[in-house]
Amino acid sequence: MKKPLMLGLTLLTGLSQHAYAQSDYQTDSIFIRKIFNTALSEGKSYEWLRQLTQDVGPRLSGSEGAAKAVVYTKSVMEAEQLDNVFQQNVMVPHWVRGAKEKAQIINGKQKTDIPVAALGGSVATPKGGIKGNVIEVKSFQELRELGADKVKGKIVFFNRPMDPTKLNTFEAYAGAVEQRGSGASEAAKLGAIGAIVRSMTTRLDDFPHTGSMRYASGAPIVPAAAISTNAAELLSKTLKANPQTQIYFEQSCETLPDAPSHNVIGELKGKSGKYIVVGGHLDSWDFAQGAHDDGSGCVQSIEAVRLLKALGYQPNNTLRAVMFMNEENGLKGGITYADSAKSAKEVHIAAIESDRGGFTPLGFGIVGTAAQKSRIQSWQKLFAAYGIHELGPGGGGADIGPLAQQGTLLLGLIPDSQRYFDYHHASSDKFETVSKRELELGGAAMAAMMYLIDKYGVE
Amino acid sequence: MKKPLMLGLTLLTGLSQHAYAQSDYQTDSIFIRKIFNTALSEGKSYEWLRQLTQDVGPRLSGSEGAAKAVVYTKSVMEAEQLDNVFQQNVMVPHWVRGAKEKAQIINGKQKTDIPVAALGGSVATPKGGIKGNVIEVKSFQELRELGADKVKGKIVFFNRPMDPTKLNTFEAYAGAVEQRGSGASEAAKLGAIGAIVRSMTTRLDDFPHTGSMRYASGAPIVPAAAISTNAAELLSKTLKANPQTQIYFEQSCETLPDAPSHNVIGELKGKSGKYIVVGGHLDSWDFAQGAHDDGSGCVQSIEAVRLLKALGYQPNNTLRAVMFMNEENGLKGGITYADSAKSAKEVHIAAIESDRGGFTPLGFGIVGTAAQKSRIQSWQKLFAAYGIHELGPGGGGADIGPLAQQGTLLLGLIPDSQRYFDYHHASSDKFETVSKRELELGGAAMAAMMYLIDKYGVE
Repeated sequence: MKKPLMLGLTLLTGLSQHAYAQSDYQTDSIFIRKIFNTALSEGKSYEWLRQLTQDVGPRLSGSEGAAKAVVYTKSVMEAEQLDNVFQQNVMVPHWVRGAKEKAQIINGKQKTDIPVAALGGSVATPKGGIKGNVIEVKSFQELRELGADKVKGKIVFFNRPMDPTKLNTFEAYAGAVEQRGSGASEAAKLGAIGAIVRSMTTRLDDFPHTGSMRYASGAPIVPAAAISTNAAELLSKTLKANPQTQIYFEQSCETLPDAPSHNVIGELKGKSGKYIVVGGHLDSWDFAQGAHDDGSGCVQSIEAVRLLKALGYQPNNTLRAVMFMNEENGLKGGITYADSAKSAKEVHIAAIESDRGGFTPLGFGIVGTAAQKSRIQSWQKLFAAYGIHELGPGGGGADIGPLAQQGTLLLGLIPDSQRYFDYHHASSDKFETVSKRELELGGAAMAAMMYLIDKYGVE
Repeated sequence: MKKPLMLGLTLLTGLSQHAYAQSDYQTDSIFIRKIFNTALSEGKSYEWLRQLTQDVGPRLSGSEGAAKAVVYTKSVMEAEQLDNVFQQNVMVPHWVRGAKEKAQIINGKQKTDIPVAALGGSVATPKGGIKGNVIEVKSFQELRELGADKVKGKIVFFNRPMDPTKLNTFEAYAGAVEQRGSGASEAAKLGAIGAIVRSMTTRLDDFPHTGSMRYASGAPIVPAAAISTNAAELLSKTLKANPQTQIYFEQSCETLPDAPSHNVIGELKGKSGKYIVVGGHLDSWDFAQGAHDDGSGCVQSIEAVRLLKALGYQPNNTLRAVMFMNEENGLKGGITYADSAKSAKEVHIAAIESDRGGFTPLGFGIVGTAAQKSRIQSWQKLFAAYGIHELGPGGGGADIGPLAQQGTLLLGLIPDSQRYFDYHHASSDKFETVSKRELELGGAAMAAMMYLIDKYGVE
């Protein structure tokens, strides 16, 4: 009985710390109901998402698609007559995939084509590709224990699956993604000629899931690619039967000079001179519509501001929807935004990011002081009415992260994560996989949070 | 402050009423973690669902598909070596659709084909179909106010949409479905020659969503069909421009004599002589794979029993997975099961149903005494770890409903409902729309609930 009793007392303490009056609760619950009702009955985000994903399409930093996405989202915010819509210059990395990659499992005379995609940031293979014997590992430790003798001249195959038992699939991703991010350099340090990585998804499917990788300074530069999870299973099985199995892959990707691009910003003006941001990232991987990653976060952010405007809300602080460029392979948009805010002495009270897909919202991750967390949690009952129960720890988001330097409270929308990695960084991340209602609930949740923060502050 | 304080006290009271020891919490949380881990890493339900939906396919009561589904699920439970696998005879209604329906909006000389499906239980039109002027209504009250003068000889078009602002889409369904269930007879009482109903979905799509209807005793029998929501929007718009717009539809469905069919039951034997049931319904509409409705509930129920068996759990009570036949258009399986349990004096402690789709589980609806609810809620913390927060009121489920006569505690799994009516009773209810992880979480939640009820009872 001790634990439950303490739980009860903690709850009481938490509530009394930030007294939240019953009259406020009634006013706020009515207004938040209007936000959700408007989102679900007259929402605009779904059609915007269709246009962004199907008409604009893929939009990797530096690409023509990214430029179109800047123009498109600016036009949406202008059409919604936000008070101030503008672009912010950002220099971004400009990596291009080149010709479609090829890969084969070579088992004696049998050659099997497998789905493959260069990792973002990787170099090309030499023309004609590379071929080599394969060393399969599940961890960097296993790789190092094998040592240079066994690895030299080979292609290292990183095959640690995402842990399916993690309820939060982002935890499973965090537990596996170092293979993609650093695998090539870890392998190259031991003399490997290339790296092949199992795609980061808990599904068994035929899509290569790409994503960014980095070369460690001092390590030899070798090409790296992702193969589908079904191909990874096949390769592993083939290797068990025949350790002399080889892999061949060819890719012609390259990194061009940095390119000019933009964040896109729209405002609903307040009087305090301070700012609250909602945002998502505008760029997507080059072969993905980026419907969940992160078209959803972009259109939800515009929608959150639009909903408050449509309901006639007069904000205390200036509310900004920010389309960040270059989250996928550089974060230059997020960094530029925070630097620019600092230079312009723009005080940011809070920033809310949506970059976990357009799924049913379940909570917000909070990065802030204990007092700020307690304030947010004092609104728990308002959100619980919409199935949003998790107001607790958890990352705010990559793009708003740089605002932490000015002490901004960071919040990340937490949608249900079960399907996110089915589509993540793959060509399957399409508009059709987004549920209109789920998308709209996320935008409404962001609007509700922005409203409460704007009304009550976070100090 | 009054309300929050009371909330805290209620919580404390609730907890102390059913003292739940910390040592039990630790044991149970470890075992429940094993249930979820096993479900997510070695789950079998997804492959069973693939076979049931793609290999067996549609399975309306009385059809060949339904007979195959009986054989298939029996074979699955036998292969899993449940202690006792058997069929229970059930006589079911046998309605058949016949040839594919046709419908057209006739606006002067312009004829537009629209997606249409007879409602389950409807009669056919005369050969060649029926054609008539259209009366559009949003409610039965509106219909009655128009009166026989305006309705006679016409086709009544029921066009009240499901309310998109309801967070729980089942509430929106409940608020609109009388049009489908009783619309034809309400229209016929005023002399209408047929009824056309807007499909029960919040989406705008091109699928007719069918479902059952009933003829009121004494009312003339007229044919009834559902048209897609896009077609309903078009018809409404066309009628506004031209009130003389006609609709034509033809269908050749008929109700055959009742047919023999079966519930399918598998057991994990306990010693108490009492029973706990988990179940879903085996039948689906004739043109749907019935992946969410209710293939998911079937395979989750078998999986829930299998998980406990796989983990070596020795139940106190006999745990039964029940595949109910004929939920869609008669409920004969549920009624037969309860009658049979009564005849055999089988005491059922609790029954858990899954018939709201294979989506992420968010809670259980409880139909029982206050003491039973309190007992279930004393386990809240165990479920909260899996995002399952809603242990409260809400229907148990249609098939287990008849067990209420013997005082059985009824629980209905509550998954996220946002996408359910996108697919409900339409040909879009396919295997591909089910997420493996979401399906598995639901089965694990049912296993966990069954385990706790079996261990602690509900009195």
